[in-house]
Amino acid sequence: MHSFEELSRDFAAHFQQAHFPDQPQSLYAPADYFLSLGGKRVRPVCALMGNELFDTINPDTWQVATAIELFHNFTLIHDDIMDKAPLRRGMETVHIKYGEPTALLAGDVMLVVAYDYLNKVKSEHFHRIIRLFNNTAKQVCEGQQIDMDFEKSEHVGMDAYLNMIELKTSVLLAASLKMGAILGGAGEGNQQHIYQFGRNLGIAFQVQDDYLDCFGDPEKFGKQVGGDILANKKTFLLIKALESCNESHTQELKELMRSADPGKVEKVLSIYRQCGVDDWARQLKEKYINDALYHLDEIAVVSKRKEPLRLLAEFLVKREY
Amino acid sequence: MHSFEELSRDFAAHFQQAHFPDQPQSLYAPADYFLSLGGKRVRPVCALMGNELFDTINPDTWQVATAIELFHNFTLIHDDIMDKAPLRRGMETVHIKYGEPTALLAGDVMLVVAYDYLNKVKSEHFHRIIRLFNNTAKQVCEGQQIDMDFEKSEHVGMDAYLNMIELKTSVLLAASLKMGAILGGAGEGNQQHIYQFGRNLGIAFQVQDDYLDCFGDPEKFGKQVGGDILANKKTFLLIKALESCNESHTQELKELMRSADPGKVEKVLSIYRQCGVDDWARQLKEKYINDALYHLDEIAVVSKRKEPLRLLAEFLVKREY
Repeated sequence: MHSFEELSRDFAAHFQQAHFPDQPQSLYAPADYFLSLGGKRVRPVCALMGNELFDTINPDTWQVATAIELFHNFTLIHDDIMDKAPLRRGMETVHIKYGEPTALLAGDVMLVVAYDYLNKVKSEHFHRIIRLFNNTAKQVCEGQQIDMDFEKSEHVGMDAYLNMIELKTSVLLAASLKMGAILGGAGEGNQQHIYQFGRNLGIAFQVQDDYLDCFGDPEKFGKQVGGDILANKKTFLLIKALESCNESHTQELKELMRSADPGKVEKVLSIYRQCGVDDWARQLKEKYINDALYHLDEIAVVSKRKEPLRLLAEFLVKREY
Repeated sequence: MHSFEELSRDFAAHFQQAHFPDQPQSLYAPADYFLSLGGKRVRPVCALMGNELFDTINPDTWQVATAIELFHNFTLIHDDIMDKAPLRRGMETVHIKYGEPTALLAGDVMLVVAYDYLNKVKSEHFHRIIRLFNNTAKQVCEGQQIDMDFEKSEHVGMDAYLNMIELKTSVLLAASLKMGAILGGAGEGNQQHIYQFGRNLGIAFQVQDDYLDCFGDPEKFGKQVGGDILANKKTFLLIKALESCNESHTQELKELMRSADPGKVEKVLSIYRQCGVDDWARQLKEKYINDALYHLDEIAVVSKRKEPLRLLAEFLVKREY
């Protein structure tokens, strides 16, 4: 049994290998560049932890974890194109540095290489792993499309938003844990519980992300508070406020969204506080954490084995930065 | 044994199935739209023919053929974005009709669905098929990148151009035939010969495409002659002319490429004729056809079984339209 930190270090070392051919450099250097920007590698480490919950790590799980991380990076490269994002982790995005056509292709080839790693899986569960991987990949694409649809739509309901977050963010976390669990020999029931653990944890994480952007301590959060508000981004808090505040607050919110008022962030936060959206968000996060922990509890292995995942859950959703 | 036309009809019927979920429509309708534009479906039919050369069609080959056609369409959707192409088969491209972000995602999800079909393959050769599919997919991406690099580069040599054409165009034809052959139970030697048959045929096809754009009968060719010349596109003929014409012709060609001379097409064609580039292209095509047919001859099955592939080769490279 290893902690998240230990597996994270091991995975980082493992992931250092060359993933692409040398030539043509004009295609593969951009792909390597993006991977060199780093990241927390949470999803592949979840695959390793999902495996270790049940058994020592199956060599196949390293392949699957590598495929998951490449898939995740493929989605980031393409999302950055779609969102016209100039920066990722403080560095130029691939399309800014190398142009959109090359960024598009570098993403494509990264997805193909992810399948190269999956193809190395020797387990009898091979087809099941690919099926889960593919279904998850489709869901992530669907989530991104729905997110883009939301940008253009005036009204987005809470259920629709939650569904989008689930697709875009939490299914990959859930599936990573489940793929590890499958390769660790977990039975059907345990597979479902670990998937639900990841799914709920992913949503709690996003609720927290939205909350900290509004009410986080800027010192600990590491970025300016109110970024989502300035970008008029739909978040759990905004959608809840628009659904539950009284009419005068709702009107004021809508006007603020159209304005360039220099006090916009403070005014929106004040409405959120008056409507109790801050309390609501904290409770919502607690609900999803509790749901996640319920499913972790239900997994039929000795408690001691669950400790690393419990600590990970705490780490992910109790952070203030 | 079936002819290309028969298998083409069968594949078209088979490919009519729904490939995507219904929702979200905003993602899947664009993917369906692109498939509805049709196409000759040459590559999947080659997989079926590659199989039938050796044995009756393995049900797996239908899955692989479907995956190949989806992969091919994924590359077309993304190529259209990169090339900023407004039309495909006379209809709006996906990015024009639905916007670039959605076209990008529709391509992505189409590639994932291609792997869904591959994942249905039950054959013991499963891993080998995926490996060949992935290697080919990477080569096609490499070819597209090199093609884009060429657009920006002043001088492109014949070997480099040939390598690009091979990657961008002919490896997928070759691999389609070989995947079918593998599933039809072909031995190693036969697999290599059918691959080389497809590779050479693909190059011959491209040489002919470049030739017809210059010297085709516009009535039969169905589009105006000289399109490549007007677009200053690098082709077998242009590269050969720049390499082999005398200095005054080479200079004139370079000047014509920079000009908007209304007689540009006629003048370039005249240089091509004076340098004998037209004869050279016909001979080059013959060379690749002969190489293709040599490899077809070498395949160790009775001649009668090879007849559909021989007819296909004739059809593909003897067309004048």
